[in-house]
Amino acid sequence: MTDEGIPASALETDADYRAAVIDLLGVLAYGELTAFERLAADAALAPEIDDKAAIAGMATAEYRHFLALRDRLAEMGADPAEAMAPFRAAVDGFHAHTAPSDWLEGLVKAYVGDGIGTDFYREIANLLDPRTRELVLDVCDDMGNSAFMIERVRAAIEVDPRVAGRLALWGRRLVGEALSQAQRVAAERDALSTLLVGGVDRPGTDLAEIGRMLARLTDNHARRMTALGLAA
Amino acid sequence: MTDEGIPASALETDADYRAAVIDLLGVLAYGELTAFERLAADAALAPEIDDKAAIAGMATAEYRHFLALRDRLAEMGADPAEAMAPFRAAVDGFHAHTAPSDWLEGLVKAYVGDGIGTDFYREIANLLDPRTRELVLDVCDDMGNSAFMIERVRAAIEVDPRVAGRLALWGRRLVGEALSQAQRVAAERDALSTLLVGGVDRPGTDLAEIGRMLARLTDNHARRMTALGLAA
Repeated sequence: MTDEGIPASALETDADYRAAVIDLLGVLAYGELTAFERLAADAALAPEIDDKAAIAGMATAEYRHFLALRDRLAEMGADPAEAMAPFRAAVDGFHAHTAPSDWLEGLVKAYVGDGIGTDFYREIANLLDPRTRELVLDVCDDMGNSAFMIERVRAAIEVDPRVAGRLALWGRRLVGEALSQAQRVAAERDALSTLLVGGVDRPGTDLAEIGRMLARLTDNHARRMTALGLAA
Repeated sequence: MTDEGIPASALETDADYRAAVIDLLGVLAYGELTAFERLAADAALAPEIDDKAAIAGMATAEYRHFLALRDRLAEMGADPAEAMAPFRAAVDGFHAHTAPSDWLEGLVKAYVGDGIGTDFYREIANLLDPRTRELVLDVCDDMGNSAFMIERVRAAIEVDPRVAGRLALWGRRLVGEALSQAQRVAAERDALSTLLVGGVDRPGTDLAEIGRMLARLTDNHARRMTALGLAA
């Protein structure tokens, strides 16, 4: 990572950088739109009306993020649907392979899955021009309601401790699926992966820093699993 | 219907009326919360990203309505979850029996189902005190995006005219299910049905007026089916 960051002018002067930002906002936007759908589906699984309402509220927050990203893409002169299209297969694939079979799996997915995604985008934000960085950080900002999710999962484990083993495996599967889809995106989208690892004429994050980033992501993931009462 | 309507003071002085209003706001609130869930599920069925986004936006509008109703229930000193609970079976039953099997059925359900529900609540609004009436009318206000739904259904019929027969049957099934669940609610919730038909010490809507109301609901339903290009 260059300490001085990317200047605002790069969006105008550097076509590769602009393409990378459109990719990034596209994958984030499609991710938020599907996060909306998945959280709403989780709300349908919630046994209690108050829990339904809380999860539905989180889903509408994801939709607001989607709107902000879509509007920024349009403002940049990109077609939002086109910008999102290349990421449908990976994002839909992730959700198809991690469809929660019950309310608790949905909660763990919302907490752990959104958590690791948000951490990753926050790391990426450091590599961006100020305007894009601010948008990405905004969109990652309000996980909200995490205390409520932790409380529900811990209460379920209290009632039946065997739940903890099943959900711990589920948490590992979520991370495995997220990584495999992220690799797919990285392999297919040059501009986006160049943003992270650098390219011919732009310094990226060096290998040691990528290692530290992965360590931070792993640590935070483990911390979230522990908060839920689960082995990471 | 009494021409002068119900005075604002009835919420304080008439325990039956207050119970009826809590019932009404409860069924509306639970209806909006599940409408949110169902529309979000429809968004997941949408083949195009722009359609997903449009339906997701409608879903978040339902959630805003839910919040307004829930807050008003709390303000009246009622427990929102308790107020909604008696209507879960009927509302969940409606959705269980009318789960769209594809995107087009979802669109018709959103347009025709929400339309008839909204019309019905608007009729009821005439029987309410001013404050409650305003809230109910607000919540019924923004169907939004109906032009987009009409356009999508008509385009699908253009491509394959057989679709029209299947969707016309589907529209009839939606109305049949809505009526059967409404009857269930009316049979179980005295306060609510008294609001419509009157009680010992309160004039309700007379039979002739109920007949005219049903005619209006049916006419509007037929108009919506025609707008979609479907036989009512």
